[in-house]
Amino acid sequence: MLATLHPDLTLVFATSDKSVGEAVAPRLGLPASTLRFTSHDDGVKLSRGVDVVVLASSAEHAVKLAPVIAEHARVVDLSGAFRLDAAAYPTWYGFEHAAPSDLARAFYGLPELFGAPPKDTRIVANPGCYATAALLATAPLLADRLAEPGSVIIDGKSGISGAGRRAEERYSFVELAEEVRAYKVGTHAHTPEIARYLQRHARVADGPRVTFTPHLVPLRRGLVVTAYMTARSGATTESVRASLEKAYAQKPFVTVVGIEDVSAHAATGTPLAVVGACVTGDTIVSMCALDNLMKGAASQAMQNVNALLGLPEAAGLSTSARFAP
Amino acid sequence: MLATLHPDLTLVFATSDKSVGEAVAPRLGLPASTLRFTSHDDGVKLSRGVDVVVLASSAEHAVKLAPVIAEHARVVDLSGAFRLDAAAYPTWYGFEHAAPSDLARAFYGLPELFGAPPKDTRIVANPGCYATAALLATAPLLADRLAEPGSVIIDGKSGISGAGRRAEERYSFVELAEEVRAYKVGTHAHTPEIARYLQRHARVADGPRVTFTPHLVPLRRGLVVTAYMTARSGATTESVRASLEKAYAQKPFVTVVGIEDVSAHAATGTPLAVVGACVTGDTIVSMCALDNLMKGAASQAMQNVNALLGLPEAAGLSTSARFAP
Amino acid sequence: MLATLHPDLTLVFATSDKSVGEAVAPRLGLPASTLRFTSHDDGVKLSRGVDVVVLASSAEHAVKLAPVIAEHARVVDLSGAFRLDAAAYPTWYGFEHAAPSDLARAFYGLPELFGAPPKDTRIVANPGCYATAALLATAPLLADRLAEPGSVIIDGKSGISGAGRRAEERYSFVELAEEVRAYKVGTHAHTPEIARYLQRHARVADGPRVTFTPHLVPLRRGLVVTAYMTARSGATTESVRASLEKAYAQKPFVTVVGIEDVSAHAATGTPLAVVGACVTGDTIVSMCALDNLMKGAASQAMQNVNALLGLPEAAGLSTSARFAP
Amino acid sequence: MLATLHPDLTLVFATSDKSVGEAVAPRLGLPASTLRFTSHDDGVKLSRGVDVVVLASSAEHAVKLAPVIAEHARVVDLSGAFRLDAAAYPTWYGFEHAAPSDLARAFYGLPELFGAPPKDTRIVANPGCYATAALLATAPLLADRLAEPGSVIIDGKSGISGAGRRAEERYSFVELAEEVRAYKVGTHAHTPEIARYLQRHARVADGPRVTFTPHLVPLRRGLVVTAYMTARSGATTESVRASLEKAYAQKPFVTVVGIEDVSAHAATGTPLAVVGACVTGDTIVSMCALDNLMKGAASQAMQNVNALLGLPEAAGLSTSARFAP
Repeated sequence: MLATLHPDLTLVFATSDKSVGEAVAPRLGLPASTLRFTSHDDGVKLSRGVDVVVLASSAEHAVKLAPVIAEHARVVDLSGAFRLDAAAYPTWYGFEHAAPSDLARAFYGLPELFGAPPKDTRIVANPGCYATAALLATAPLLADRLAEPGSVIIDGKSGISGAGRRAEERYSFVELAEEVRAYKVGTHAHTPEIARYLQRHARVADGPRVTFTPHLVPLRRGLVVTAYMTARSGATTESVRASLEKAYAQKPFVTVVGIEDVSAHAATGTPLAVVGACVTGDTIVSMCALDNLMKGAASQAMQNVNALLGLPEAAGLSTSARFAP
Repeated sequence: MLATLHPDLTLVFATSDKSVGEAVAPRLGLPASTLRFTSHDDGVKLSRGVDVVVLASSAEHAVKLAPVIAEHARVVDLSGAFRLDAAAYPTWYGFEHAAPSDLARAFYGLPELFGAPPKDTRIVANPGCYATAALLATAPLLADRLAEPGSVIIDGKSGISGAGRRAEERYSFVELAEEVRAYKVGTHAHTPEIARYLQRHARVADGPRVTFTPHLVPLRRGLVVTAYMTARSGATTESVRASLEKAYAQKPFVTVVGIEDVSAHAATGTPLAVVGACVTGDTIVSMCALDNLMKGAASQAMQNVNALLGLPEAAGLSTSARFAP
Repeated sequence: MLATLHPDLTLVFATSDKSVGEAVAPRLGLPASTLRFTSHDDGVKLSRGVDVVVLASSAEHAVKLAPVIAEHARVVDLSGAFRLDAAAYPTWYGFEHAAPSDLARAFYGLPELFGAPPKDTRIVANPGCYATAALLATAPLLADRLAEPGSVIIDGKSGISGAGRRAEERYSFVELAEEVRAYKVGTHAHTPEIARYLQRHARVADGPRVTFTPHLVPLRRGLVVTAYMTARSGATTESVRASLEKAYAQKPFVTVVGIEDVSAHAATGTPLAVVGACVTGDTIVSMCALDNLMKGAASQAMQNVNALLGLPEAAGLSTSARFAP
Repeated sequence: MLATLHPDLTLVFATSDKSVGEAVAPRLGLPASTLRFTSHDDGVKLSRGVDVVVLASSAEHAVKLAPVIAEHARVVDLSGAFRLDAAAYPTWYGFEHAAPSDLARAFYGLPELFGAPPKDTRIVANPGCYATAALLATAPLLADRLAEPGSVIIDGKSGISGAGRRAEERYSFVELAEEVRAYKVGTHAHTPEIARYLQRHARVADGPRVTFTPHLVPLRRGLVVTAYMTARSGATTESVRASLEKAYAQKPFVTVVGIEDVSAHAATGTPLAVVGACVTGDTIVSMCALDNLMKGAASQAMQNVNALLGLPEAAGLSTSARFAP
């Protein structure tokens, strides 16, 4: 969808085995066009004629597809297939990684922390939605040595669309309205992703131990993480805010606010991550809100496409709130 | 569930082919008991030892089961299998009715309009949730000749649980939150049910033409109908209210209020139907709210069980609001 | 907000007595700008230097402000102050109209039914959100003589934002979640607005009698109307759909779909009205969904601004769905 | 409301300065009675004739009222006025405590942790809703030395009714639907309450440092807390579950389940707290769900009334789920 709104991009094909032959435009809320969905197999062939392919499949498919496509086109992969060490895949994703050398060369596309990919990058791993929020809320505070590196606790609250359009009873309206519950406690695959990139960004020897507990709350979209770290001596609400403001001063898609202004409404419908932090007692509380479908997926992918093509980071992306009721 | 709270009843068995052997109590939110689900087939055998069986299957199953069970026990059937003329089933339910003589003897269990079943009743057809609301809002006004009998328009708004715990994408939270849409426009099986019992209660020669449009709105439970009829000369807001108050004066489960006080909150969690009406221009607007799981199903079934057993109508049912936030 | 996204417009001032001096951009979700809110009084002075003023005050204020501003600038008025006959104001708005000659010359800005305003128009009355939906759903069917003109019943379901950001207990989350209720039954000021413009568009001698019952349902934004009219002999689902398609064939902001595809989700976040109709028995059921903040207010105002300035109707407005979860 | 359902209690008076003279029954969803609201002042006089007064005022009022009433009747106080050390009141409640000797003799009424009040108790401090949930989730694990006592992090998610029926814009449906945000970060008055009673129950020398961050999520009622503690060597998911099961084995209003079964739905509408815990890495994650209006307020008060009167703990309270959609 975002691609078609981008002044410098043309959407060449879109694949969906379920919808082969159906018009793409109405499904994505796009202006009328003649484009129709092709099969995933045809997509691989069509990828020979394009500059960038955005891949939104399961990790298990992506680990096979991305290396093939990457021979012809650069790939932005929205799955978790190129984010962790190869050794972590059996535990966290349930399969042996079949392309460890591609994995080793993949770039983790969180531009606010890791900048632009090297020129020869073939595969960009688009970060997980929760990992993006957790990393943006905590990495600068660890890097600036305001937080102890030992233990980072991430309490996540997300809307339902992160789970996709599921035809399952437990995602029905009756089950989820007026409900709050945790899921995948201690087992969510974003846990090692957060730990790995915290260690990389903050250059902490052992890496922090990350505890991550995602919760479902009755929203359609949007997520909020609340991170807890032990404050180092001297850390104050002012210094943690200053750390975040310095980190994101030149970043068009991260906004720093007071912690009680971090909210789903502040981010939903926009490509923004909204962060804020404070110190209470000897604990740093740091929050981040973002739209799981935007900064947690599609608009972050667009940032990565822009970077791969040498376009301005914000090309095709508006920071205007789309919803201002 | 309600049976176990009833001072004079004992729950003897509960069937569920999906849950054979599982404990009944936790699924229904009941006090601990040793009762476990049996298969539907075993249920038919067990029905030989009980006074009343409450049947909550599809209409297609009920039309076969109820006559068999009715040889030994009285039946309160929550499906639509015993509510219409036999001739109506192919059109509205998609099957030929296999037990037309049982159908002809079945009693329509809307006690506020049709009183108690005859002594020899074997099968009580528990009314549909929407039909209950539509009939309670309109029947007294037709019977009292305040409304023209020609055309009755029923606009329904219901929560999602009426549709059951569905494992379908279109019943997911993401599809239904922030959504309003109509469904089964002109084809909902409660349409002929409303028409038939309006004609029977109001003794109108030709019977009114009923237009019924149900809508899904983002509630977990509860429904509201707004009925529109042409006012006969002289009908006023006062006279339509008086008609409703007269009709329901001795009825513990129907409450008459001002039309703007008819609301889902007023009824949800209770065995009550809440009705109110007014005249505007030459149109009568009459509304009814009820909980589709209570007065639209379980608590109405309990009224019918009480009637079959000669117990007080309100035995086992409390009119105290269960939810008063 | 929409003005700043328009390629040919410049937002010169914005007034708010509550927020004088505060930055405009963050409140409206706009790109950074130096614009700050001025008082309403200063707004009147500043209006001397602009082409068009969009007025969003109460009807009682607008009836005084609009004629003063209209001496210098053209006015698009979002209130109800210039929509009815002068004689209707005491009954429906509670005041005598102080500017009947301006009222007589005002243009009712529903472009899909009434086209562009005459060149010398000073005041455009932007239609009410419910009136827009009701008129779009019914006017072509009356004009094409598919519906009897006698009685039009409009059952409306709207989200809460139509009522504004109210600091009232009855608009609190606790009161409105899981709730459905009617309000202003028989007394909503959009009732005579619907009747007046149905009569004007359909050239019906006496004008239809309109019964309008708005309901609150738990959405943040969006509304759906379900209209009921008596079908004239020969009207069919096909002919009513054809009538709507003919009426809106060249209209970029009205989409015709099957009646069960008319839904809040189809319209929310877009400048579109989505309409669909069918015939069931001898009744026409016709529905319209729109976003009360867009086609029901701001985007329709932008259509009217474009018309006043001779710009293309769709300038500054995108039909891409903004929200496609 | 609960008092009137209690077989051994009679509701003698109810006060409300806003509603003097109005009938009590419909406001509380009660069976018809002749009781009408009296003023708060009259309530003090009427308290001379009763055994127990349940006080639900602000802390500032309760600190003055409770000692006066306690001369004649025993008091269950739902405010925070009798929960902390006198020294803590200026910081956390904004006033000097005017009745420190009554405070010193008040009993903290969390029966699952602190048993029944001494015979001569005059004032029972009914615990805060969040404090109840946080204490039930963590106290046994600290007492059993499964968790390090240093730091306890409490992340709370609650529905809106905890905040009461507020006539404020920020509690409106439009502001809260689709929203998640934190409030009173580091400043919520339940923070010292949790710390104080953790220390008392677990007999920890210094008491744990408590970090508490409450969040608003779009529910009408219900709350969930997720607590994080450092696991002591040897603590396992099995041992933490066993600790909770031992602590609550004889407690009718606490249910121990697997952590992913702790949910708002499991508790809402019931007098139950539902708890569950696990160990992940070196962190204990422990959760509790309860209904803020029941175990977080009214049903816990009823437990305390029963204890004061020597009645069975569960008298007048049903553990049947009231809502089982």
